[in-house]
Order: sequence, then C-alpha cells, then structure tokens
Amino acid sequence: MFDTVAVIGLGLIGGSFALDIKKLNLCKNVLGYDINPAHCSSAERLGIADRAFPEWNRQLSNAELVVVAVPVASMSQVIEQLYPWLSPQTILTDVGSVKNPVLTFMEQQNFEGIHFVAGHPISGSENFGPESARVGLFQNKKFIFTPTENTHLPSLEQLKKLWMALGSNVHEMTAELHDFIFSRVSHLPHLLAYAAIEAVGTGDTPEILGYFGAGLKDFSRIAASSPVMWADIFLENESHLLQGIENFQKILAKMEKAIREKDRSALIDYLAHSKKLRDDWITS
Amino acid sequence: MFDTVAVIGLGLIGGSFALDIKKLNLCKNVLGYDINPAHCSSAERLGIADRAFPEWNRQLSNAELVVVAVPVASMSQVIEQLYPWLSPQTILTDVGSVKNPVLTFMEQQNFEGIHFVAGHPISGSENFGPESARVGLFQNKKFIFTPTENTHLPSLEQLKKLWMALGSNVHEMTAELHDFIFSRVSHLPHLLAYAAIEAVGTGDTPEILGYFGAGLKDFSRIAASSPVMWADIFLENESHLLQGIENFQKILAKMEKAIREKDRSALIDYLAHSKKLRDDWITS
Repeated sequence: MFDTVAVIGLGLIGGSFALDIKKLNLCKNVLGYDINPAHCSSAERLGIADRAFPEWNRQLSNAELVVVAVPVASMSQVIEQLYPWLSPQTILTDVGSVKNPVLTFMEQQNFEGIHFVAGHPISGSENFGPESARVGLFQNKKFIFTPTENTHLPSLEQLKKLWMALGSNVHEMTAELHDFIFSRVSHLPHLLAYAAIEAVGTGDTPEILGYFGAGLKDFSRIAASSPVMWADIFLENESHLLQGIENFQKILAKMEKAIREKDRSALIDYLAHSKKLRDDWITS
Repeated sequence: MFDTVAVIGLGLIGGSFALDIKKLNLCKNVLGYDINPAHCSSAERLGIADRAFPEWNRQLSNAELVVVAVPVASMSQVIEQLYPWLSPQTILTDVGSVKNPVLTFMEQQNFEGIHFVAGHPISGSENFGPESARVGLFQNKKFIFTPTENTHLPSLEQLKKLWMALGSNVHEMTAELHDFIFSRVSHLPHLLAYAAIEAVGTGDTPEILGYFGAGLKDFSRIAASSPVMWADIFLENESHLLQGIENFQKILAKMEKAIREKDRSALIDYLAHSKKLRDDWITS
C-alpha cells in the first residue's frame, strides 16, 4: 500500500498503528519519530519502527504517509516543524482526540503540496507510552474522519482503506459534531472520574483507602489515564467541555435537591431514567 | 451451626447468603420470606430456600437466626412486623448499606428478648433479584459489623464466625464511621455515575448513543444498579452524602475554573494528584 510510512509520536496509538501496518505488510518501511530518545530505543527494540529518531532528518522525505500521533497540545507545533522535511504530495494525517483546533490551524497555514486528512481512532486504554502499544488495537473500533471542503479526496479514500485494513469501522462527520460528541462520551466522563477520585480519596480519613471496592475501581479506571494528555484534551475542547460540565452540574444539583428535600419519587425517576439510557445503549 | 435460619428478602444478598449457608451445611433448614410471591417461587426453584413465603407465619418462631436483607428504606417496618413472630433469644441481623438509621430505630424500640447485630457485607453487583444470587458472593470480601454498647456480644461472635465461614474478612467500626466511609467510596460514586449518564446521554443528538465506548461503559456500570434501592440508600445516608456532593462540587468547580482560565499547570496538577490517589489505592 505504501513504501515508507513515518509515525510521529511513538505512544500507545502511534506505536500500535506502526505494529499493525508492519504486521499486515501495508508498507515496506516504518520510520518512527519521538521527542523522547528512550521512546525511540523502546520502539526499535519492540519492533514498532524499523528506525526511530529523536530528531527530524532527511529520511522523512521518503515517507508517502506521515501519521502524527502526538498529544493534541503539541499537534500544531509538531506539524509546523516537520513540514519542511516532507516531499510534495505527502499524505499527512493525525489521530488527535479533538479535531477543530488542528483543522483550524491547517486551514490558516495552508501548507503547500501536503494532503492533510484529520482523523481519530476511537481506541485506547488508560495506558500510555510505546510499551503499551499492541497489535490489533484498532480492530472492530470506530475510526472517525472529519473532512472539510478542502480535504484531498483521493487521500481520504486511501486512508479509509488503510484504517479498514486495520479492522476499524470508518465514519465521517464534521469536526464540530465530532468535538461535541466526544466532549460528552469521553472528555466529560474522564474529568468527572478525576474529580470523583479526588472527592472520595482525600480528607483526614485514611481508612477510606481500604474500602475502595470493585465498583469504584471500574468507575475510576479512566482516571488512571495520563494527566498531561487529558489536561490538554480538556483545554483543546474547552467550549464543548464547559457546556458539558454545566449540563452535568445542573443534573447533579437536581438530584441533590431531591435528596435534600427527601423527594423519593423524583429521585427514583431520575435514577431510573439514567439507568434506562444506559441499558438502551448496552443493548443497542 | 444453626438448625433453622430465616432469610427475609430474597434478592442478590439474601439469596446468595442462603445459597452459601446451605452449601456449607451451616444450617439444616432455610426459610425464605419475600413480599414478592414471584421471588418466593424463584427462590424455591433455585434452591435458595427450602420453603419461601410471601407472608409471615408460625414457622418463623423456629428460626434461631433471622437475616433481614430488604432494602434499607423498608428495614425498620419489616423488623417491626416480623418481631411478634420471633422466639426469645433469636439473633436478628441485617445486611443494609447504611447503619445509623437501623441502629437508631432498634435502640428506640428496644425489642425485648431479641439480639440485634447490625452488619454490612461489602459485596454485590449491579444485578438484583433472586435470579442474581450466587454461591461464593461473600468470598474474600469485607463484612463490617457496627456494634454498639448494647450489642449482645455472644451473638456478635457467632455472626462473625458465620460470615468468616462464608469467606468474608470481618471488620468492626462504629455506624457513624461506616456511614461516612460508604458515603464516599460507594454512595457518592453511584450518584455521580447516574448523573453522568444523564449528562452524557440526553439532549437532541441521538447520534451520541453510538459513540459510547469501553471507558464509559466501565465508568457507568454502577448506574445500572437498582434505582429504587439506590434512591433509598441516598436518602438513608443523606447527611454524609450531601457533604460528599458538596465536596465533589468544589473539586469539579476548581477543575472547571482551571479549564476556563486555561491554567494548564494547575489542571495537570489536579489530574496528577487524583491519578496518584487511585494508583496508590490499586497497588496498596
């Protein structure tokens, strides 16, 4: 499918992508780049990249496809730095969790000769770094492209084929809708999990630690995720997330009021409605 | 250990307790009681009770031990109703998730001749009803007794042996501390999960339902629990829970402020502190 692919950022997503395209023989040569030299050594040792570099170099010009898998806060800066090293007609794509900022940046910059396609694989885990990369991470997961009127359609089609070859179910939507949906189904729950752990676990009653149970463990698993990565996602998707927080605060206040006023039937209605939403989703 | 044990309320906890004591031959005869006749038939069919009744009857006077496993909101009323049917020296115990209200009630009523011991098995799942009962539910789980100065110590000791025989790790604390700890590690997270699902899943964007992922599934599993049971737990533990909600709201507001003011370093600090609390707990 490709001769040379470069993966910029050798963490969970970039590393797993590289492992998959090698395993499926979708390219001959995988170049890896990561600002952290230890990640480069790990990537070579783990067979993630044929060669991995902590600095830009001339080999990048051989890449027909460059996948940028860096934290969303570094995305624009990394693309700006790597652009001069790319050959004309290179397909450039990203895997960031927030799409509006990178698209706005790309439209402003108008990098000549590069075909940029914005995408987001809906996969991952609370683990991070090259050691967490694994084959098959994208299998049976959604992949969302957020094309604009300026997107180079043949490049989009080629990337769709690539991600489908990795087992993903490919979707398309606007960046605006994408960022709204993921502020709700992903970013807000992550923030709430972080806040909940803090509310549960702090204070002057250290005995509490001994009584965390299985329910709380599952509930808070997403709060084991990378603080830097998630702080940046929250900041990049600020406006949608702030709306989501406000919405949540209103719902919590309503439930709190029912508890304070001992309004049992209202409280049962709230909880039953929420449970039904979840049950409908699980069985859908 | 006992000749006849009566289990009042044949749901997940009562049913699993009955299955265990039969399997371990800790009593000859298990009587079941449940206000719902369908639960009684299920309990007999599933081997949970030798006989199960939807109404009080004379056989209750044969029970040396009576375990009340009804929802916390019905606890006082059920104990009041069943008291006249019990023989003197009967050990009466409960398995409710909130301990102060039942103890306050028992101290006020002073039921002559009955040895009441308050307890709480830290086990369960989001499932409920007799069909969800299973052998070994209490294995390697905590069981917390909340004795008072009026607790009959030989009865407490006998119940400790019983729950240890079921594989539980037995603890003792005051009802006050119990209700505080579980408002934090259990009741607050359940309320937040219900509120979060509502905040994520409602609104005029039905597409959202299709993008719920594995993280959100785990995060919200506890919101699949019984709305009636949890509404009643929230109401019974109202004062501790309201404090917990207030605490959570302050933490969320702090994080929201950091997002609104784009204070990246404060936000990273908050998330990192929360992650560390959870990591310390997981590895402890």
